[in-house]
Amino acid sequence: MTVSEKRGRPGYDREGILQVAVGVFNEHGYDATSVGVLAERLGLSKSAIYHHFGSKSELLEVALDRALGALESARDKALAGEGSAAEQLEAVLRGAVQVLVAELPYVTLLLRVRGNTDVERAAVTRRRAFDRSMRALVEAARDEGSLRDGVDAGLAERLLFGMINSIAEWYRPEQGGSADVIADHVVSLATAGLFRG
Amino acid sequence: MTVSEKRGRPGYDREGILQVAVGVFNEHGYDATSVGVLAERLGLSKSAIYHHFGSKSELLEVALDRALGALESARDKALAGEGSAAEQLEAVLRGAVQVLVAELPYVTLLLRVRGNTDVERAAVTRRRAFDRSMRALVEAARDEGSLRDGVDAGLAERLLFGMINSIAEWYRPEQGGSADVIADHVVSLATAGLFRG
Repeated sequence: MTVSEKRGRPGYDREGILQVAVGVFNEHGYDATSVGVLAERLGLSKSAIYHHFGSKSELLEVALDRALGALESARDKALAGEGSAAEQLEAVLRGAVQVLVAELPYVTLLLRVRGNTDVERAAVTRRRAFDRSMRALVEAARDEGSLRDGVDAGLAERLLFGMINSIAEWYRPEQGGSADVIADHVVSLATAGLFRG
Repeated sequence: MTVSEKRGRPGYDREGILQVAVGVFNEHGYDATSVGVLAERLGLSKSAIYHHFGSKSELLEVALDRALGALESARDKALAGEGSAAEQLEAVLRGAVQVLVAELPYVTLLLRVRGNTDVERAAVTRRRAFDRSMRALVEAARDEGSLRDGVDAGLAERLLFGMINSIAEWYRPEQGGSADVIADHVVSLATAGLFRG
């Protein structure tokens, strides 16, 4: 936690406020959390929060942008590679697991967004664009002949990312479990399956 | 919906009340739903609901038992088969997808349970016993030599059921999409992976 001691009282910078807010949003729900509740949890006045964030909605926007930006960067990095679509897909799957583990609270918040406000709707739209680019990548892997016969690209994309997103349900950073080990398992399960060929 | 017309008013039997209640629990959350809200949604008096279910908690218990009972039956049927552990695992994965699609609202409710009440805690305990039996089955498949080298049974079990559970996030019965087609994809993705060998 980004906490610094100032004149004997804990102080939070912008990053520290964001981190605590995302934790409270995940615990109690965004709608059910007021800026007053956040202020109480942080031991700050509401105006101290408003010094850093114009509104509760801005906190949400910054948090969702962090999750989406990290996923998009992982994708863009993988797509910039020279390899086949299959190799790029493998790289995105690995990158998405690493983002999920590294930015767990932010991705958890993103996965729970239901599109009730403008900020949430914008995040859902951006997430869907990411999903469409992943589907296009699975299709490209199919078209280059990398996929087994009969694979439905849309269904496979949903199932693969369903598997990755489900990691947020059980992964707890404090219990260790390296992102690389999980990413290796996801990639090998996704590409080669559980059973010996 | 199990609705019958009685003297010009819609009537609900036990099954119909349960179905509507589960829909409202999934939409607004179990905690946030009162028997008064259910009565209003059903167009019934609270005492008409209490004629069929002793409490809101009993509605939840019956709903969760339906999801858990269906999953356990699918497992027990698969484990009663003569085949290898790998074949039994394949049958359970197929059966779990079919249960999820056939009992979607009930499984959705089960997946959201967080263990805040005795009924919820009992359901979480029963779900964990199911998960343990699945892990034991993955281990048995490993021990008979069916799995690729290096597969972690616990991690594989979590990822496979994460993939299956994620179907509840996007599957909409009204848009069609056969349970058998989805189950085939889950089984082939899980066992043989996405890529050509």
